[in-house]
Amino acid sequence: MLFKKQKKLKVAVCGGSGYTGVELLRILHSHPYIEITAVTSEKSSGKKVSEVFPSLYKFDNYVYEHLNKEKLLDKADIFFCALPHGASQDTVDFFYKNNKIVIDLSADYRLVDPKIYKEWYGLLHKYTSTLKKSVYGLPEIYRNKIKKASLIANPGCYPTGAIIGLLPAVKNKLIDVSSIVIDSKSGTSGAGRKADLSVSYCEVNEGLKAYGVGTHRHTPEIEQELSFLAGKKIKVNFTPHLIPVDRGILTTIYAPLKKKITEQEIFKIYCKTYNKEPFLNVLKNNVFPNIKNVRGTNFCEMGLKLNKRTNTLIIVTAIDNLVKGASGQAVQNMNIMMGLDETTGLNNPALFP
Amino acid sequence: MLFKKQKKLKVAVCGGSGYTGVELLRILHSHPYIEITAVTSEKSSGKKVSEVFPSLYKFDNYVYEHLNKEKLLDKADIFFCALPHGASQDTVDFFYKNNKIVIDLSADYRLVDPKIYKEWYGLLHKYTSTLKKSVYGLPEIYRNKIKKASLIANPGCYPTGAIIGLLPAVKNKLIDVSSIVIDSKSGTSGAGRKADLSVSYCEVNEGLKAYGVGTHRHTPEIEQELSFLAGKKIKVNFTPHLIPVDRGILTTIYAPLKKKITEQEIFKIYCKTYNKEPFLNVLKNNVFPNIKNVRGTNFCEMGLKLNKRTNTLIIVTAIDNLVKGASGQAVQNMNIMMGLDETTGLNNPALFP
Amino acid sequence: MLFKKQKKLKVAVCGGSGYTGVELLRILHSHPYIEITAVTSEKSSGKKVSEVFPSLYKFDNYVYEHLNKEKLLDKADIFFCALPHGASQDTVDFFYKNNKIVIDLSADYRLVDPKIYKEWYGLLHKYTSTLKKSVYGLPEIYRNKIKKASLIANPGCYPTGAIIGLLPAVKNKLIDVSSIVIDSKSGTSGAGRKADLSVSYCEVNEGLKAYGVGTHRHTPEIEQELSFLAGKKIKVNFTPHLIPVDRGILTTIYAPLKKKITEQEIFKIYCKTYNKEPFLNVLKNNVFPNIKNVRGTNFCEMGLKLNKRTNTLIIVTAIDNLVKGASGQAVQNMNIMMGLDETTGLNNPALFP
Amino acid sequence: MLFKKQKKLKVAVCGGSGYTGVELLRILHSHPYIEITAVTSEKSSGKKVSEVFPSLYKFDNYVYEHLNKEKLLDKADIFFCALPHGASQDTVDFFYKNNKIVIDLSADYRLVDPKIYKEWYGLLHKYTSTLKKSVYGLPEIYRNKIKKASLIANPGCYPTGAIIGLLPAVKNKLIDVSSIVIDSKSGTSGAGRKADLSVSYCEVNEGLKAYGVGTHRHTPEIEQELSFLAGKKIKVNFTPHLIPVDRGILTTIYAPLKKKITEQEIFKIYCKTYNKEPFLNVLKNNVFPNIKNVRGTNFCEMGLKLNKRTNTLIIVTAIDNLVKGASGQAVQNMNIMMGLDETTGLNNPALFP
Repeated sequence: MLFKKQKKLKVAVCGGSGYTGVELLRILHSHPYIEITAVTSEKSSGKKVSEVFPSLYKFDNYVYEHLNKEKLLDKADIFFCALPHGASQDTVDFFYKNNKIVIDLSADYRLVDPKIYKEWYGLLHKYTSTLKKSVYGLPEIYRNKIKKASLIANPGCYPTGAIIGLLPAVKNKLIDVSSIVIDSKSGTSGAGRKADLSVSYCEVNEGLKAYGVGTHRHTPEIEQELSFLAGKKIKVNFTPHLIPVDRGILTTIYAPLKKKITEQEIFKIYCKTYNKEPFLNVLKNNVFPNIKNVRGTNFCEMGLKLNKRTNTLIIVTAIDNLVKGASGQAVQNMNIMMGLDETTGLNNPALFP
Repeated sequence: MLFKKQKKLKVAVCGGSGYTGVELLRILHSHPYIEITAVTSEKSSGKKVSEVFPSLYKFDNYVYEHLNKEKLLDKADIFFCALPHGASQDTVDFFYKNNKIVIDLSADYRLVDPKIYKEWYGLLHKYTSTLKKSVYGLPEIYRNKIKKASLIANPGCYPTGAIIGLLPAVKNKLIDVSSIVIDSKSGTSGAGRKADLSVSYCEVNEGLKAYGVGTHRHTPEIEQELSFLAGKKIKVNFTPHLIPVDRGILTTIYAPLKKKITEQEIFKIYCKTYNKEPFLNVLKNNVFPNIKNVRGTNFCEMGLKLNKRTNTLIIVTAIDNLVKGASGQAVQNMNIMMGLDETTGLNNPALFP
Repeated sequence: MLFKKQKKLKVAVCGGSGYTGVELLRILHSHPYIEITAVTSEKSSGKKVSEVFPSLYKFDNYVYEHLNKEKLLDKADIFFCALPHGASQDTVDFFYKNNKIVIDLSADYRLVDPKIYKEWYGLLHKYTSTLKKSVYGLPEIYRNKIKKASLIANPGCYPTGAIIGLLPAVKNKLIDVSSIVIDSKSGTSGAGRKADLSVSYCEVNEGLKAYGVGTHRHTPEIEQELSFLAGKKIKVNFTPHLIPVDRGILTTIYAPLKKKITEQEIFKIYCKTYNKEPFLNVLKNNVFPNIKNVRGTNFCEMGLKLNKRTNTLIIVTAIDNLVKGASGQAVQNMNIMMGLDETTGLNNPALFP
Repeated sequence: MLFKKQKKLKVAVCGGSGYTGVELLRILHSHPYIEITAVTSEKSSGKKVSEVFPSLYKFDNYVYEHLNKEKLLDKADIFFCALPHGASQDTVDFFYKNNKIVIDLSADYRLVDPKIYKEWYGLLHKYTSTLKKSVYGLPEIYRNKIKKASLIANPGCYPTGAIIGLLPAVKNKLIDVSSIVIDSKSGTSGAGRKADLSVSYCEVNEGLKAYGVGTHRHTPEIEQELSFLAGKKIKVNFTPHLIPVDRGILTTIYAPLKKKITEQEIFKIYCKTYNKEPFLNVLKNNVFPNIKNVRGTNFCEMGLKLNKRTNTLIIVTAIDNLVKGASGQAVQNMNIMMGLDETTGLNNPALFP
């Protein structure tokens, strides 16, 4: 579907009062070809967006409404769903079947195999035929499919950083895929916007902890995509950590090298792979990324090291979990689907410091 | 000077490796009518901007050069000077005398009276005739003068938050101006980008302190502008504090009421005064601002309270010290001088969280 | 009541799962003459203290129990009540009437006048005769009364920093008490331990705001004590702010001078007043305190400035809101009541950085 | 050497103005059998300790002096050396040869092989015979040797967390030692107290980065001790990260299991190994540690996970880098050497929040 720039695209945001929701609104606000026509929130329905998020002072005319699918249907051409896992199934299916463009930020349409979805999320998938139409929205792998898709399963925040970091190494069979370690550290916005003691300031500040060790739900998502890339089943060690910053995910990846290869050659393979990617930057000369440098952007920076002493490839990637890890990537996917320049609305440099 | 949008304005940033410098580059990067033609830094000359600030990855073609005034002269039409106090005097005078537009972010051309400059900054002003041509760049007061100016003294960060908060009250003679208390709290970027133990992480984090109590150099700047507004000499109690955040200034102002007046009436006066201001927002119903909601924006939010028990007006303002308190206001001034929409390049909502 | 050191004092902590509760346990743990015999919590009853607070790993034998007054009565000689305002009334009265030593950390027994309590807390005081027996537990004012008391109303965190800062000035009639401004900034632990969006990490971090402007409940407490000191009714402007640190309150106080007096003379009056106070430190030579330097201690540091330009006295005090502002002061009061060295268990230097 | 408690041990701190120095002073201040007789600092000599560190207000009588070895010799029985790497060689050798007890917090006497020291630190070891007398001060391995030693090489912060985490697994041959991954995250105090842009607040706050990837100097120290435990040469992947907190190191360790074994059995092995260790706590039931819970303590907490999907053992340890990772462990070593209860002066619970 190619977009004619004469008139603006009508966009609805379902689930607009969480952190990915407010980030979507922030990004869409600066998008020149977009018009937001509806924003839903169950908790905040009836309230102005600018009241719930004073940072969105320009949204003085937007009022949260209940997610009434039938009522919303005619309001928009494109539906971003930033709903909780599980809750997204119905809504996405409904808009998809009514010929709308749907970009789902939940996990509901990411896992190809409903059995794995059931295993990790404890839920039955009720729309397996719709699930089959879903395209995993990582442009660095699926750009061509995304162009033709009308249902996007927007990747999880951790999988984005992990898969981008590993893609060139797995695809080019540089590493032994049987013992990959993915150690991720995420800012607290990744835990969502909620009244919960575990994310209260005095519990998180000056702290650091691992969580979901060996059991985090992003594991099968990472494994699915790496397995596709490798052409065989891969299992990974993935450990997320909670760090006292608002935004950002740093992912440190370790994998034994399979080939005889120099660091310089690896660097070239990474550069070649990501050469034309508008949001990826492979850092040179043992420079490693800092989440602070990508804050508020759709950028992913990465650094590489061949540890000769252990013959291990170490890759470090940095993204903003709310942008490239969620809402920015969602807009990137929309741009691709609409035939727009992929970076539209996503060009701002990071806010530093 | 009205700007024809056909071709881009050539802009040079003198002193582009401090926090106000990098913020200028960030904002100018998204400005549609601007082309950056030179960036100077003494410490970092010869280095790429993107090497010093990886957050500015898009500035891969920009290399810091030494500030060679003669060499720079033909490169740009507009010169932003983000140089240290004192060091700015010569440079500003040179470009001004060579018929360039100059926006000075230092304090050198802010104080009308060179004696007061000498008293607080310990420096002789060598260009008093140029000083007379300078316009204090607070659009909320001097918009009409700014339109015709070619030398702008961009206000200090603390004065911006303090003067905007007091302007309607002073102008409308609501308060006793003889005992104003201005208690300000600033993020650490206000201290500049420097290798100094006093701003090192472990000294600032989890801390809070007052500094420059009764002696801070922004005091005479606040007093000058309030005195102009009041039509008589005003002295204020101004105390800055250092808080462990990157950005933001919250200013809490206390002044005894002179008139019998209701909170609602005061609110109306504030709203009327700032009605058409594109970057000012007077909050209703005892809502008070949070610096987090203006982070990365040129916005100033303020809240009001009439404390009837003490007959005191309490005003709280929030700005981002690097944007409305420095580089954003500088670009706002440039927009006004160039006849552009005042908000060009400054429309983004705050990055939250 | 003088304490024989041969056997340990039996102490119960009612309300031990909030931040003042856990801080009490931390301090009492290092107290040589104390044995904790009961800890209550409604939410966490049945759980080990070390499970709720892994930082208290040494409390592996303590299990939270419900607050059953009758059951608790024989378990302890001293009862610390760290219960919510209102909820404390009954419990305190019960233990007091049963001849126990009670140290109440709530506001219920602080305000001498039940009408003012009603006005600010919206609650009727049901035990006005017990209220009359209560001593306001600020040792710097009431040490002699505390020695003989068996019911202590432990001061609020903000009042502690404000009153200590103003005491010498008010007592010695240095200042015009009709226009005192008290601008306080508190760490987030002051808001209590709770699942609430307003104290969640991403809302507080990188933010700063004023709250309860002109209406905070600590106002009448500050006014009561200052009025006693001045010998006449005083009303103050008190504004609390929430800052992104765990602990600490910095209070900046402004008051017009009434007398002709030098800074040096004021300094001498402050030093003389606080000369023998074990936890107070008046800083010299325009040095001002930082909350970071008193973190985890019962210390209060203060700095002074006579602003000659405005004839205003500026006082800045720093305390740890959970120690001198709550649990540490409670233990200090217990030490005084028991005839122990006042600093017992409270001698540790600050944790820096 | 057994200590008679009648008189206090005389202790000198060489290099007392860094973060490990100030932490030593903080801990020693509460140590009942210690008297500090000298504190040195080159930068701050002549200044009061309490002036440089207002948190140490009780050290009003201590003045920093230059490190004059001859002059210091008679002042103390025990010398803590918290000097920079390299600078420690001479000083340690001098006091050791003069029959003093020396606890060296630098890396100079940790590596058994001077060639490896040369390789990683770029320095020749001038005192190889003294080096041979040095005992690596990790009580969990070398307690008996420490008892008889008079020169202790106090372990590095990262090695402490890594070795303690791996000890039971390596010793009991549970894991394949050829592909251990050690991913560590350290608070900023680990970088030392210095005026350096890289540790300035606005660079560190809201950021996260890896550094020294594959090249950090603590690598050979970890490898040395693990090799001793395994009885063969081990090389590890060790990546440190800088996190925006003051204190704490969280270390996440991954190693393939060699044996068929259940998580419960591993847990038992860990518990048995660390059963009698006064500062080690093995958490049960997939609970993982948080650095916040050990802040200010000499404690090391650890959690375990057997990831059955990948047959990998995951161990997470948390320490305070300035206490168990430096000054606390140094005092623990002193206690052991002096025949004191090992926990003397180290019993305080963590400061939480």
